[in-house]
Amino acid sequence: MTAVPGSITDGRALVDEAMRACVDRLDPANRRVIAYHLGWTDADGRPADAGGKALRPALAMLSGRAAGAPPENALPGAVAVEFVHAFSLLHDDIMDGDRTRRHRPAAWTVFGAAAAILAGDALLALSEELLLEQHTRGAHWAAEALTAATQRLISGQALDMGFETRADVTLDECLTMASDKTGALLACASSIGAMLGEAPAELVTALTGYGTEMGLAFQLVDDLLGIWGSPETTGKPVLSDLRARKKSLPVVAALTAGTAESARLAELYAAPGDPAEADLREMAELVEAAGGRAWAEAEADRRVALAAKHVGDVEMDDAVRAEFRDIALFVTARDH
Amino acid sequence: MTAVPGSITDGRALVDEAMRACVDRLDPANRRVIAYHLGWTDADGRPADAGGKALRPALAMLSGRAAGAPPENALPGAVAVEFVHAFSLLHDDIMDGDRTRRHRPAAWTVFGAAAAILAGDALLALSEELLLEQHTRGAHWAAEALTAATQRLISGQALDMGFETRADVTLDECLTMASDKTGALLACASSIGAMLGEAPAELVTALTGYGTEMGLAFQLVDDLLGIWGSPETTGKPVLSDLRARKKSLPVVAALTAGTAESARLAELYAAPGDPAEADLREMAELVEAAGGRAWAEAEADRRVALAAKHVGDVEMDDAVRAEFRDIALFVTARDH
Repeated sequence: MTAVPGSITDGRALVDEAMRACVDRLDPANRRVIAYHLGWTDADGRPADAGGKALRPALAMLSGRAAGAPPENALPGAVAVEFVHAFSLLHDDIMDGDRTRRHRPAAWTVFGAAAAILAGDALLALSEELLLEQHTRGAHWAAEALTAATQRLISGQALDMGFETRADVTLDECLTMASDKTGALLACASSIGAMLGEAPAELVTALTGYGTEMGLAFQLVDDLLGIWGSPETTGKPVLSDLRARKKSLPVVAALTAGTAESARLAELYAAPGDPAEADLREMAELVEAAGGRAWAEAEADRRVALAAKHVGDVEMDDAVRAEFRDIALFVTARDH
Repeated sequence: MTAVPGSITDGRALVDEAMRACVDRLDPANRRVIAYHLGWTDADGRPADAGGKALRPALAMLSGRAAGAPPENALPGAVAVEFVHAFSLLHDDIMDGDRTRRHRPAAWTVFGAAAAILAGDALLALSEELLLEQHTRGAHWAAEALTAATQRLISGQALDMGFETRADVTLDECLTMASDKTGALLACASSIGAMLGEAPAELVTALTGYGTEMGLAFQLVDDLLGIWGSPETTGKPVLSDLRARKKSLPVVAALTAGTAESARLAELYAAPGDPAEADLREMAELVEAAGGRAWAEAEADRRVALAAKHVGDVEMDDAVRAEFRDIALFVTARDH
């Protein structure tokens, strides 16, 4: 298993403390749902330790270092991107009817959809509040970028929901969806610390480019794991994306490859009712035989290289540059 | 029927045009839900004319005039407050299970809860985007105030949802809830144009005070109409708030009055199942007999007077001041 880079674990305590202080401002009802959703408590409100890897805050903090700013300066950005991420997961789970999140019951199954909708709204508003209460030019820049990223995240989710009832999704549309739903917020996370540090536009642009490519690579790997990943690491049942007939990137690449396997896969995807276990195994084989797996693996590698090039082409501390590259390699490693 | 003040109808076309241009930026799926929700289209996407009275944009435009700023300057604020209002109605209808909104099926019953959740998210993000793309000190101020108002609106809804399962709601809690859920956004609407115009803090504070008091008065009257209003004007069935056993202001005033009628009302509110028609009529009579109706009417009048005092105490054009007062009288008139 690829080791977790230090930059993901280092600032974790600082970000965690700032997140808790922010959530403490909310009313008790929303606080309860959010503490559970973020993994801080169990369903009964008892302390727990079930949080995610906090990739976005780590990128935000690192981008502050790239701009030469002190850690406190990037902190509101780190918290804000994680809150937007948490908001989107809270609402997506309701919209998609997903009952499990990180090996635990999704928040809406514990507290009800109404409470989960409202808690998501509170997180979204809080993320903006955090940035805007800093009265600097950099904070305005960061808030504007975060709102634009949120809007893309939302339109990506709209596109994704539309895919469910369509048999003619193109690979371009699927890439746009992934770029909106996953890439935009990772691009914002990778540059928000630099914006808060009022870095030159050139650095912010390079970091945004890094995050965009890394985000696509991350989604490609996530989609590969959604088919071939082990339930222990994904937290979802085996072959779960195929079970839900999700139009993920490797699947759409296979569906649009024009092979005999593409046609058979399309047939299985269009069949009514829940797929049988044998059908699920056949679907996975068809995605591979139609070239969907190999394409996704190669495309992920290509995007990681592009991400590395973005941080390679701009002036920053060499240690910071290396950490950006380590993170891209880590989150796209296919051995976890 | 009290005549609609000119300030509510005057800027309507300008705001409407700006709102449509903003919604046009969104993806087609969210656009469709929002156009329906805002009353621009019917369920099949055909043009319709079913919008609300756009009170919040009118207040925003008027507050721009109070600051002596040109109308274009207040426009993003007018659109932003209306989008936050529309977002909250979209999500509240899902959370509260309300199937009707302004005499039409609520958006979630037409497009599904998932689409309505996402469209609400898009409106909330859009409201911030609109303000932040103005790179002025006033826009930052406005965005910060709008986010704070949104956060209060959300905690008011959380409090309101909590009331449903509680028999011990105090009048103070009920006033806090109304102040958060209705007052905060009206206070922001009444001052956002002045913030965008970078008016003196004194004017913004006075207008916020006006909106706070007017918002409470508005909610008191809305609660009175929720019991005694005619279905033609409220767009809801007769006695609908009592049918839903809503803990509205006149009801809580009656429940906490310590009279024999209070006790009987509490009994009917605690009874299981849907109330019979005779029970509904008895509930309405009990609210009145326990003094809830008279208290709410007097409290609304008192708040309107306080609102008028806020705009009376600060320097602004006399015509603008008169329009603020007209709006407060109009929205709290009990003959419509």
